[in-house]
Amino acid sequence: MGEPFDRADVRIAVDAMGGDHGPSEVVPAALAYAEAHPLDRVILVGRPEAIETAAGRPLPATVRVAPASEVVRMDEHPALALREKKDASILVAVDLVRRGEADAVVTAGHTGAGMAAAVLRLGRLPGVDRPALAVQMVTETGPFVFLDIGANPDSTAENLHQYAHMGAIFAERVLGVPNPRVALLSIGEEKGKGDARIAGATELLDRSGLNFVGNVEGKDLVRHLADVVVCDAVIGNVTIKFFEGLSGFIFDLLRREFRRPPRGPLAYWLLRPGLERIRAIFDYERVGGSPLLGVRGTVIITHGRARRRMIRYAIEVGAETARKQVPDLIRERLEELSGRGRPVEAVEA
Amino acid sequence: MGEPFDRADVRIAVDAMGGDHGPSEVVPAALAYAEAHPLDRVILVGRPEAIETAAGRPLPATVRVAPASEVVRMDEHPALALREKKDASILVAVDLVRRGEADAVVTAGHTGAGMAAAVLRLGRLPGVDRPALAVQMVTETGPFVFLDIGANPDSTAENLHQYAHMGAIFAERVLGVPNPRVALLSIGEEKGKGDARIAGATELLDRSGLNFVGNVEGKDLVRHLADVVVCDAVIGNVTIKFFEGLSGFIFDLLRREFRRPPRGPLAYWLLRPGLERIRAIFDYERVGGSPLLGVRGTVIITHGRARRRMIRYAIEVGAETARKQVPDLIRERLEELSGRGRPVEAVEA
Repeated sequence: MGEPFDRADVRIAVDAMGGDHGPSEVVPAALAYAEAHPLDRVILVGRPEAIETAAGRPLPATVRVAPASEVVRMDEHPALALREKKDASILVAVDLVRRGEADAVVTAGHTGAGMAAAVLRLGRLPGVDRPALAVQMVTETGPFVFLDIGANPDSTAENLHQYAHMGAIFAERVLGVPNPRVALLSIGEEKGKGDARIAGATELLDRSGLNFVGNVEGKDLVRHLADVVVCDAVIGNVTIKFFEGLSGFIFDLLRREFRRPPRGPLAYWLLRPGLERIRAIFDYERVGGSPLLGVRGTVIITHGRARRRMIRYAIEVGAETARKQVPDLIRERLEELSGRGRPVEAVEA
Repeated sequence: MGEPFDRADVRIAVDAMGGDHGPSEVVPAALAYAEAHPLDRVILVGRPEAIETAAGRPLPATVRVAPASEVVRMDEHPALALREKKDASILVAVDLVRRGEADAVVTAGHTGAGMAAAVLRLGRLPGVDRPALAVQMVTETGPFVFLDIGANPDSTAENLHQYAHMGAIFAERVLGVPNPRVALLSIGEEKGKGDARIAGATELLDRSGLNFVGNVEGKDLVRHLADVVVCDAVIGNVTIKFFEGLSGFIFDLLRREFRRPPRGPLAYWLLRPGLERIRAIFDYERVGGSPLLGVRGTVIITHGRARRRMIRYAIEVGAETARKQVPDLIRERLEELSGRGRPVEAVEA
């Protein structure tokens, strides 16, 4: 985490080379953020010439460049790439956080490489068994925190329990939800349903002190029945990718019909205000900053396809997560949890 | 399984009391099926007076009633209900298959009760470790078989391997797909991704003799990259319920905009042919017959909310599954598999 926050400003390391579009989208996003937040500091990590070209003008005083000569490409194997590319922008950016020279790192680069770099170089927070990657899932009434979406396959009931605490802290501090409702994703609402992992996690959550509202089903995910929904990595990953695939499929089918003359274009023109309202609900760019929770520092990963608007929102989330000291709060909560764990109960028994 | 099929006609036991709407939707569906398939026989299982009232006319010669005085309600605990209600329509219907008096059972009743009744009274086929509930998932180019969606939480890699064989037989015989492409649902397409169960299943599928096309992601489910997609029960259940929730959510938002005067209704009128095309793609009623694969007999479960059109399609699937001797083929394939399993390899090594 670096030094404690005794000031309002944060320093954000931005992986300038990451993502499908690289500096041409990341750098403008970072500059827009810097201009809107003059008290914060932005560190663009990557090839100086590429960053300068993408900026197209002298950098403002609050933005500096940290050189990194290599990039992990989106199609590389993350572990191999990190081993070979010691000067990869994501590693240099994470190291700034490790050395206390930055408070957060934001990347649109390879998700697996970002997670591996963070776990490798920052390590887990004390009390955290496994980190989790969270997303903000859209609903009509606002986003909820959904985790794990891929950091930790083969999770245990205790892992899910820890995710719930970490997600609740993020929801409370960054999304501003007081006493967030926590739920477990399962086959049915009844407590007996699901598998052994879900049964174990239900038991742990029942006595977690969290505002645990029980188990929710897949169909409830659009209904905002909880502010934090916890599940294993495979389920979470399949769910968010299916979200992308299914909503994209439906909107593509509609687009095709709106383009079909003669009636389609007129229908589109008539329905346009309504379609804008729907688009605003499905504005995943606004919620595209995904925190990797449980590591020693603030790490935000956004979609490889992200363009400047989405990347800028991811930087906002990174700044807010660092400013609200989410990693410190997670450490405190989970140290406290492991302190009053099984052994204490054994003494009471 | 009953006697071997030496004739083209099949006898289908229909749980007349099951589902949210009970006999008023099930009985007309069964009668419509019987009229369209005069060589088949339909056995309506339930309260005779309720069935007669719902029929509203004398039953045709190919339809008979098997009395059952009780019903498992949709909100009951399946195991408890089956223990207390010995004369429940689903039990009586399954027993007809067990005694060889029917070739298939079709129910819109409580899914858990239907599965429990089938496993309890029919048992597993030789060679099958655990049964799996499959659905037909819609894509633009037709349905694919997706399983397990909830029969067997805590599945193993070997279970997934067996599901693949069972799903492939159903796809080939009932959906008419030659040499069906089989895939495993995972976090990424690369073989290293996913959890230990997926890794183990990938290995088994690689040498399964099936047309295994590898691992697919959640976003690929709408793309029809495979004819059979296999996963654990919790993932499958969350996915199909999320499908229901998310597509329902999007279509509800659109409906709201189409209703908003003055432009919405006109846009709706203009776009109506296009919306009909989209509705035809998402016509889950046509594919709503879900086979429980791996039990000794043909068991088809459809949605509790199903109305007569969907129930009739489920009866069609049940008849086709029995006619094509899917349970016999599964038994043959899985007995063969367990015959050439680990012990033989040990000898070779």
